[in-house]
Amino acid sequence: MSESKHHKDSALKVHDGIDQPDAVSPEAAKRFKEIRPKSLEAVEYVRAILNGDRAVLSKAITMVESALPKHQELAQQIIEECVPHAGRSLRIGITGVPGVGKSTFIEALGKHLTSQGNRIAVLAIDPSSRRSRGSILGDKTRMEDLANDPNAFIRPSSSAGTLGGVTRNTRESVILCEAAGYNIIFVETVGVGQSETAVHSMVDFFLLLMLAGAGDELQGIKRGIMEMADAIVINKADGDNIPKAEIAAREYSNALHLFPPSPSGWTPRVMTASSTEGTRIREVWEMVIEYEREVKATGYFDARRKEQALQAFTDTVEETIRQKFFSNPDVMSLIPGLQKDILSGKISPYAAALRLVSGH
Amino acid sequence: MSESKHHKDSALKVHDGIDQPDAVSPEAAKRFKEIRPKSLEAVEYVRAILNGDRAVLSKAITMVESALPKHQELAQQIIEECVPHAGRSLRIGITGVPGVGKSTFIEALGKHLTSQGNRIAVLAIDPSSRRSRGSILGDKTRMEDLANDPNAFIRPSSSAGTLGGVTRNTRESVILCEAAGYNIIFVETVGVGQSETAVHSMVDFFLLLMLAGAGDELQGIKRGIMEMADAIVINKADGDNIPKAEIAAREYSNALHLFPPSPSGWTPRVMTASSTEGTRIREVWEMVIEYEREVKATGYFDARRKEQALQAFTDTVEETIRQKFFSNPDVMSLIPGLQKDILSGKISPYAAALRLVSGH
Repeated sequence: MSESKHHKDSALKVHDGIDQPDAVSPEAAKRFKEIRPKSLEAVEYVRAILNGDRAVLSKAITMVESALPKHQELAQQIIEECVPHAGRSLRIGITGVPGVGKSTFIEALGKHLTSQGNRIAVLAIDPSSRRSRGSILGDKTRMEDLANDPNAFIRPSSSAGTLGGVTRNTRESVILCEAAGYNIIFVETVGVGQSETAVHSMVDFFLLLMLAGAGDELQGIKRGIMEMADAIVINKADGDNIPKAEIAAREYSNALHLFPPSPSGWTPRVMTASSTEGTRIREVWEMVIEYEREVKATGYFDARRKEQALQAFTDTVEETIRQKFFSNPDVMSLIPGLQKDILSGKISPYAAALRLVSGH
Repeated sequence: MSESKHHKDSALKVHDGIDQPDAVSPEAAKRFKEIRPKSLEAVEYVRAILNGDRAVLSKAITMVESALPKHQELAQQIIEECVPHAGRSLRIGITGVPGVGKSTFIEALGKHLTSQGNRIAVLAIDPSSRRSRGSILGDKTRMEDLANDPNAFIRPSSSAGTLGGVTRNTRESVILCEAAGYNIIFVETVGVGQSETAVHSMVDFFLLLMLAGAGDELQGIKRGIMEMADAIVINKADGDNIPKAEIAAREYSNALHLFPPSPSGWTPRVMTASSTEGTRIREVWEMVIEYEREVKATGYFDARRKEQALQAFTDTVEETIRQKFFSNPDVMSLIPGLQKDILSGKISPYAAALRLVSGH
């Protein structure tokens, strides 16, 4: 299915204009929504995605990320059709500060996995790109090898907007990739700010990449992230770096034993690896598989997936009502003055909040 | 000011019925709110609080915690009058699992501080008490000595409701205690669940109490909490426990060096102490004072206070609109069915969220 085919299909949409039943009761509107026929365009998208068409998958993710209501409507229809085909992948979150070698690591691990017959997808969460309109994956030419692999799908992040919005887009993109048959999904994050928590909330295994030594390279990692990790991999353990990396691994390993145990029952591991030389990439993956086997046996895997789905529901509801509230022009015009009064001690944060909620 | 005096004063309130100017413009309503005369009752409360009247302070906190609209109205008036007199204390968060000896530790530290001429207040965050209607401080007779100290104010928590609500109540109670002249405020939390993050968001220094060894006593501590701590104190370092506590302290100290540095620039410390024998209680306090001196010199102290105040504003707004939404009967009736459909894979969490937001 080519792009032009899609554009032609757009003209065939049958749902335009009939999905806003203002005159009917809310109850009837709900029923109506449930039985509303899917657009032909959505049906075509879903068919192509289920057939593993990468161009269409990519275009569907663009719909997910689009701010246009008609794109969002289409994206929702596609996602709902894909949900029953999703969920059967292993989702891996990877974080680490810029310079730690995330792309090279994902490329090395990804090539190892596709050579074993896996189909992998690489997504990214990068709310900061809102400012630069840049892309944490798009900038990088290093993943070129993997990008040319027919069994790998790499989605450069062009996300814009709030962390909540970007998080939701990534979660929805995971569903689409799974429906397209990718059985291992990597979600990459930049390693600074809030996005690690978001990634942690949507993956089965959370891997923190670090460098040897405990100096400047720690600066970018938010406190609390280390305790979320199911594994720490000390990257760039090659050449002269090996002894330093081994020492760092031992230190982190000791430190992790002092942490509270994870509800998964899994004790986080620390390993060294070299993405550029391919050292211990296989072992890292064996560890992930061991984790998967363990937590599937205990039932934790499924329980966590369910918990994550319910959390995504609550998060999306809260994000939606929050956005609706804060995008109200009256609210927006009041905030700067209230913030000023709070900082000058004229009003308490609580009174200011009540005034904003009741006064707009 | 006695309780009966207060009840008499209630009859004198002058603001009843005039604070809902439905017929005027929002702009006028806002101005009106700002110039609305405070009730006589609120004025009496504030006068007594500023005079350090403990009974009235206690009653004001009861108003803060009350769910009755007229109590909340009164509480808001009192708090707004107290805000200009608040902020001049050092706020210490203390957490640790049940059994770690939080009460004994706070009592030992508190008595040390009052003997130096300080006035201390002890508050608690305990959202879990909603279930038991119990109280993490009220249950304990061990703090009796401190409770009888005229320079200490201990508020047994009878908090009920959501974490957001309880957090807000505690933040407001801190303002009242500061206005009443308490220069050191302890905020205690039970050490399980989400409340540590809430406490961390309202204090200047966050202290984690632990026991020697890294076994079962870690179970209750949430992942990520350890990285928030400005200090870890290994408690019960007495008798046969001393060597074990010293080893634990060394191990944690090494581990903390592997953590990302705090934005405060402060390197978290690990110490041993014994609340029952009073060992190293003085040293713990000297460390807190050293922290205060350091972060006040760098400007971090003030910057963080401002950040916390703005965060409290945003948190309160979000909590208020969230509560309003989720307490809507239509919303409440839809949620169980949607959750069921999410878990059975019939609908995505996002579509369910959109349906909830648009469909109620």
